Amino acid sequence: MILVRQEIGDVLRDFRLQRGQTLRQVASRASVALGYLSEVERGQKEVSSEILAAVTEALEVPISVVMRRVGDRLAVIEGIDDAFPDVVPDDLVAEVEPELSLQ
Amino acid sequence: MILVRQEIGDVLRDFRLQRGQTLRQVASRASVALGYLSEVERGQKEVSSEILAAVTEALEVPISVVMRRVGDRLAVIEGIDDAFPDVVPDDLVAEVEPELSLQ
Repeated sequence: MILVRQEIGDVLRDFRLQRGQTLRQVASRASVALGYLSEVERGQKEVSSEILAAVTEALEVPISVVMRRVGDRLAVIEGIDDAFPDVVPDDLVAEVEPELSLQ
Repeated sequence: MILVRQEIGDVLRDFRLQRGQTLRQVASRASVALGYLSEVERGQKEVSSEILAAVTEALEVPISVVMRRVGDRLAVIEGIDDAFPDVVPDDLVAEVEPELSLQ
């Protein structure tokens, strides 16, 4: 069974790490218990809509961006979509930025 | 505050109506209490990942499709996206199918 909370947790952790923040910092800014946020990130606890709003605000990422990324990950799991729709094709990268293709 | 459960509820109801099914039919197929499903659709109750998986299976719609639609609706609410990204621009329609632009 595909569990949405696991993808939500992964996406929230990805954004947090991308921003170089600790669980403690985000939990504090979102006024959420650190242990709870940790469980949410590990997909062990469901996140309420209010907490999700608070955490995404603390991370300064729109909820829509989080939910779309969750949808994209689920599509890959369900095998109904190409893996990374947002990735620029290699040949296009080579065209626009030739030096990248030399690496 | 933007509440994800309201968009999830709206999207689930949209899919149910699209399929011409009653709350009772979907609740029965998903083994969920009718009153609970009704509250979920109205955005009054959070839906657990397990219930969401069961309801989307009963509706025969991939969870990823539901979550992407939720993300699209949130993007409109957040004002960070055009309202209907999947709609073909009028001028492109006119170009490809000239007869449509005469209506």
